[in-house]
Order: sequence, then structure tokens, then C-alpha cells
Amino acid sequence: MTAMNTPAFDTITFLSDYGSIDEFVGVVHAVVREIAPHVKVVDLTHQIPPYDIKAGSLALARSIAYVPRGIVLAVVDPGVGTARRAIAVQVANGEGILIGPDNGLLAPAVAMAGGAEFAVELTNPEYHLEAPGATFAGRDILAPVAAYLCNGVDLRAFGPEVDTAALMPATVPLPRTEGDRIFAEVLWVDRYGNCQLNLGPEDLEGFVTSAMLQVGRESDPGGVIERFVTRTTNFEQIGTGGLGLVLDSYGMMAVCGQRRSASEELGIEAGDQVVLLPADDAGARSSTQVTTPVSMRSSKN
Amino acid sequence: MTAMNTPAFDTITFLSDYGSIDEFVGVVHAVVREIAPHVKVVDLTHQIPPYDIKAGSLALARSIAYVPRGIVLAVVDPGVGTARRAIAVQVANGEGILIGPDNGLLAPAVAMAGGAEFAVELTNPEYHLEAPGATFAGRDILAPVAAYLCNGVDLRAFGPEVDTAALMPATVPLPRTEGDRIFAEVLWVDRYGNCQLNLGPEDLEGFVTSAMLQVGRESDPGGVIERFVTRTTNFEQIGTGGLGLVLDSYGMMAVCGQRRSASEELGIEAGDQVVLLPADDAGARSSTQVTTPVSMRSSKN
Amino acid sequence: MTAMNTPAFDTITFLSDYGSIDEFVGVVHAVVREIAPHVKVVDLTHQIPPYDIKAGSLALARSIAYVPRGIVLAVVDPGVGTARRAIAVQVANGEGILIGPDNGLLAPAVAMAGGAEFAVELTNPEYHLEAPGATFAGRDILAPVAAYLCNGVDLRAFGPEVDTAALMPATVPLPRTEGDRIFAEVLWVDRYGNCQLNLGPEDLEGFVTSAMLQVGRESDPGGVIERFVTRTTNFEQIGTGGLGLVLDSYGMMAVCGQRRSASEELGIEAGDQVVLLPADDAGARSSTQVTTPVSMRSSKN
Repeated sequence: MTAMNTPAFDTITFLSDYGSIDEFVGVVHAVVREIAPHVKVVDLTHQIPPYDIKAGSLALARSIAYVPRGIVLAVVDPGVGTARRAIAVQVANGEGILIGPDNGLLAPAVAMAGGAEFAVELTNPEYHLEAPGATFAGRDILAPVAAYLCNGVDLRAFGPEVDTAALMPATVPLPRTEGDRIFAEVLWVDRYGNCQLNLGPEDLEGFVTSAMLQVGRESDPGGVIERFVTRTTNFEQIGTGGLGLVLDSYGMMAVCGQRRSASEELGIEAGDQVVLLPADDAGARSSTQVTTPVSMRSSKN
Repeated sequence: MTAMNTPAFDTITFLSDYGSIDEFVGVVHAVVREIAPHVKVVDLTHQIPPYDIKAGSLALARSIAYVPRGIVLAVVDPGVGTARRAIAVQVANGEGILIGPDNGLLAPAVAMAGGAEFAVELTNPEYHLEAPGATFAGRDILAPVAAYLCNGVDLRAFGPEVDTAALMPATVPLPRTEGDRIFAEVLWVDRYGNCQLNLGPEDLEGFVTSAMLQVGRESDPGGVIERFVTRTTNFEQIGTGGLGLVLDSYGMMAVCGQRRSASEELGIEAGDQVVLLPADDAGARSSTQVTTPVSMRSSKN
Repeated sequence: MTAMNTPAFDTITFLSDYGSIDEFVGVVHAVVREIAPHVKVVDLTHQIPPYDIKAGSLALARSIAYVPRGIVLAVVDPGVGTARRAIAVQVANGEGILIGPDNGLLAPAVAMAGGAEFAVELTNPEYHLEAPGATFAGRDILAPVAAYLCNGVDLRAFGPEVDTAALMPATVPLPRTEGDRIFAEVLWVDRYGNCQLNLGPEDLEGFVTSAMLQVGRESDPGGVIERFVTRTTNFEQIGTGGLGLVLDSYGMMAVCGQRRSASEELGIEAGDQVVLLPADDAGARSSTQVTTPVSMRSSKN
């Protein structure tokens, strides 16, 4: 493979936990602009909670189907400056390359893009900025590599090949069924307070038009809360004061209110467990653990 | 009209209530980049309070005079996925097309741009993305339409013509005078706590250099608060501890402090009423309703 | 010098205290897009605290080494609309021009870029927008000037030359040593709660592997707090529950936690004083004033 075989890119899609208060995001843009002025940087979001690798990986997975051909730059990196590897992972017959720390952040998106085809560790200092300190790899390592990839530098130039089967996998929570109950997890609470569950419509056979939703545990101050939820396809159908189980824009089921936050009303956040049960079976309660963590490897096997 | 008669555009100006925490804005950018890579997306703001159509419409109206030739994409859309229409409205002899829900959000900006010349409902699925769910029209309908318009697709291709006189109008609050008193409304509180009123300098005859400002109602815990306000043209002239009535950068009158928030000091927010009266007539109090809602139709009539 | 001698630019790097709630930043982008459509605007940050010239100047100084060739547009401007001057300052043999209010905001960045070579006051209304009011110079004066500079208009066209030695200087806090103690100031608290000090590694001779850190004053409710800090080069080396003195990504020393906020734990903010002393000398306490303000002029002298 020679450099001429590597296609050049003109888009870098960028996600991080850098926030908007400081100039971190802007400096990364500046570095890209300096090295590869032809590149457009698309900012997905930089408000991933600090150090929250799981939240970052889920946001990236939700977005990946809409990301243009090119480079994905993702930074949620509590281990910056340690032995954790910085990597670049090729997917989709080379139409996409994801860059970030090897801590599981990239894994779900890589899997959704068809799996890792090839990966390298970003060790070649020739393509890094000289760094006064080791704590801003986004600026000093990842951004310059993304920019040089857009300029057509071959992926192999950035460092030694890494076994794709040895990349850090992601832990994704799977729903679990027990009798007529479904134990699910809140994956994501969005700006509107909609609570995306780790359930697709295919998981809801038997809940044709409605369900009972249980949140909380018996040991909580408020105990277990139980609410009737209606299945709808938009927010207005929920009706004032009600709660809906809505097929959201990612094809997942979400607990939503009509023009108000279901998260606030129910007191639930990302990572919390919820239980769905038939609307006429609400008398029985359960506080069983919700999810069974499983490993999703980032290779195609 | 043929496709060749439709000019292509290279700028999409984008406003929404999507916030910056989630990846909604970024995904819209990604969709545009994929369909129309030549386009620059200018983000006006995405921090319109959730569902607040009026706040969104005012921000768009404040900005429209500065928006470049091209497409305006605006999304504050609590009725997403229902029968409310998604529309595109042509203005300014075709130099601008505003896209968004038909819920009044676009109306003030359309009026300020000279009124609606032509409008269509965005029903043609050929120019939409396949959607896993119906709740993200910004990504699945509005953004692709904006991008295809930039690519030169004729406006009539996106759906049937809509009677511009039947578009949802906006409700704008007008000030009211009673004797020597002016009853006004706070339209907008900005980051600095400046409170823009629905008053222009032409409404302030008789208040040459100062006025008394009344906020609050007698039924409030703090009752009616009365403060002396000086007319100034900048913030430093207000002086430490004082309040100014400043001609703001949009040609409206705003209640402001010097390097501190007038909104916090007075406890007023967008939508609140205030009364201006001559500085020597402050003894008389009133808690009369402030504004008379009127309908501003989005057509040129 | 003729207009042909002035190089055209294609990047404007933009920092302000405009925030993201309102449409201020978006309108500035729109103005630039209208006048100079070829220009890319790189946003450093717009979350400088309102009116905080010092915080803005430090963020700009941290970024300047990474800013691409072109224009820097900086707006933290409590004196907008008064006699304070709006200026453009040439640096780096004309490779960069910084634009903003003459209130010290630009001074540290100008100094780091080698000092002011030439400056003008932006008084020529030919290159300003007509303004309904005087309070949005970013939109009406600074942004159009930045855009016209990118279009190749000569710097001298925008107004009369200003003596670079008469530009408003910045006040930067210098550390002070007293015996084996170092009195320092927190320059910046970032999103992660890392507290950058006004100390470089060269100031820490005698503190090879660790130090005692004192924060607070005897008169504080909690009195003087004393904590052991380890010198590290990344965050993970700090260890759970500990505090580190980390060489940060700008080459400065920062007090940091491992995946938690040192700022919250210690109750310190930008501007606060801290004292470093040898780890075996912690018994002696001091609440002496920390910093000696000195003036850094923005000229090369």
C-alpha cells in the first residue's frame, strides 16, 4: 500500500467531553485548519459529561449512520497521557476512519459501521504537535493525525498495526425478560427529558397500546413509582399530564412527556433501571436487577 | 418554472431549540454535509428554550436582516410528527427561503423579509431521509430539503403549494398608552440581563432623559417595584448601581444595568409586563394588563 | 503601502463573552459570510464570563500559538459605545491581525505573538454596518472590519494609526517566592476542575516529587486547608482521592484530581491565591498576599 492508494478526505466529524466553556474545541479546530485548510469539521457535540466514556460511545453510535464519509475524531479520555493507546480504526472499506483513545469509546460506532477492518496505534511523533505537557492529546496527537489523514497520508504511516480483535470492547446493556416483565435501562436522557430505553419495538410484543412502567426501588425514599404509559408515534398524542412510550427518531423506545420532561417527572437518569409490565399486571412489584452486561467486540467476528 | 430557474444557494442559516448537550445540531450539520457539501451552515443559536415558539420567532426576527442570501432552517417544533405542516416559504424575490414547522415560528421573520411570496408543504418523501421514528423532522425532513434546495432543486418539487394567507400567523405584543403611561412587555432577556422591551425610541416621546419604571404587581410578594431609569446610548453611561433605558443594537429600548443584570435586579423575565411613566408622576400606581395581543399575518397584505 | 501589498486572509479566529444562549455569535458569523464568503470562522470559545476581560485575555493567550494565519476577532467589551477605542493590531510580520476593544483584552496574545508592529483605530464608517444602536460593536464594527481585511482591504484604510506603545496593557499576576514558599495564583479553572497556576516547571526547583499546598485564609470559615500534592505528568498517576501537581498542556503547573474536580474539592476559583511549600515544612502557615501585579506592555519594548 502506498500513500497514493489512500484517499484524501474533506470532513472530520468531532465529538468530545471538552465542553464549551473553555477553548479546547476551538483550538482543535484551529489545529485542523492550519494543517488541512480544505477540511470542514462537523461538531456532533462536546457536552458529553466529563470522563463519561459510555455516554460518549452511545452518542457516537446514535450518530454514525448520518456521519459523512471521512474521519471521526472522538475524545473522552480520562487516561490521557498514560499507556492507554491512541488509535485509528478503518471501517466501511476505507470510507471512514475513527480516531480516539482505545478505551471503548469508538467500539459501538465501529461495530455499527460494519466492524474494524484495520487499525494502527498513533505513535509516530512526526505527525504530532510538540506538546508542552501530555494532557491534551486531542490537540497534540488526535487532531493533527485527523488532519494529515485528510491530506492523504497513509494510515500505516501513523504507527504500527494493532490487532483489531484486541481493541477495547464496549459494554452495552441488554434488556432482559422475566415472565411478562421487561427489565430495561435508560440509555440516554435528551434535552427535552425524553428517556431512551435499550428497547426496540421488536422487544415490545404483548404491549400493543400501553404498559405499566415501574421506576425506582423499594429502598428509595419514594419507593417504587408506577405509571401508565401509552404507545404513541409523536409527543402530542401523549396528551397533557400523561406519559408516552414513543418510537424515537433512532428506532428505539423512549419514555416521554408532552412538552415536559419525563426524566424530571419520574426522577430517572441515564443508567437507571425501569420495568415494563402489562397494564393489568401492575399489582405485582419487583426490584430485580435490570440489565445483563454483555461484551460487544469491535471486530467483525 | 423549471429546475433551471431555481437558483442554487450556498448558505443555510440554522436556529433551533435543540440545545448543545445532545448531538441533534451536529447530526443536522452532517446530513447537510452529505447531501450538499458546498454549503456553509451558519448557526444562529440552538438554545431557544424547549418548545418556546415565541422566543424562537423573536430571535429569528432580530437576526433576519443580517442573514445571508440562502436558506433559513428553523426548528422549534413541539408538534413534530403530528398533522402540523412542515413548510418552505419563499421571500425577497427568491433570494431567501425559510423552512420550518407551520406553527408561527417563521412568521415574524417572513414579514420582516417583505412577506411570503410562495410556499409549499414539504410532503414529497423523495427528498426526505428514511426515518426510524417520526420525532426528528429536523434531521429527516427539514435538513435534507434545505440541502436539496441549495443543490438547485425547484421549490415546487418538495410538495404542493400552500396558500400564503393560510400560514400560521405570529402573535406579537404591542405596547399600549394610557394617559402618560406606557404599558410594555419584556420581549427578551439576553446573556447580560438586558431586558429588551417592545418599544422603539418613537414610542418614548415625553421621556426625553429619564423615566420611572414599574415592575411587578401589587399581588406579588414584593409588590410593585419602582425604579428611576436614565436614557443612555451605552452601558457605561448608566453609572454604578443605576438602571438605564438604552437604545439597543436592534433599535429597541432595553432596560439595562452597568456590568450587571437588570433582569436579576428587577426580577423580570421575557413575557413580563413593565410600565413607564414620567419621573415626576411616580406616585400613581397601576397594575393594569400590559399588552394587547394582535395578529401579524405572514402575507404582504 | 497600497491595498495590493496587503495580503488577503481566509480565517477569522473568534473569541467573545457572547455566550451561546442568544444569537450574537451567529449574527457575527452571518455578517462575515455576507461580506467575505470565502472565510472560515474558527470559534475559540464564547463562554468567557460576561465583562471578564482578564479571563478573555488569558484564554486568547493560551490559544494564540495554535491560531492559523489570519485575523483574530476578540470581544469582551463592557465599554462598548463609549470613548474606548476599537483597534486592529498587526503582529508577526503581517501574518496576523488582532481586532477588538483597546481594553487590555488583546495585550497578552499580542505580546506572545511577538508584539504589536502597527495599529489603527477603527473609525472609518465606510467599513462599518449601519447600526440601529451603539451596543453591538462586534456585529457593526469589528466583524465587518475583520471580513474586509480578509478581502484584502489595507489596514490603514480603517482609521488613523495608533501608537502601539499607548495601547492598553494587560495586568498579569507573577508568582512570588518567600524563603522556601511559593505564592501563586489560580489563573484558570477548566471544565474538569483543573486549576492552572501562574507557575511553570522552572519555578518548582526544590519540589522534585511533591509539595504541600495551602489554600484559603485563616479568616475563612474553613481556615487554611493543607493538602499533599504529587508531581505527575498525567491525571491517572494522581491516584484515587489524591491531588496532583500536573504539567498541563500549556506548559504550566496545574492542581488536578483524578477524574474529579480539584476546584470543587479545594473550593478554589480563578483569581484565588495558593501557597506551595516543601512537604516537610507544612507545619508553618501563612496567609500573606500571593501575587504582585505587574504591567506587561503590548509593545515589543
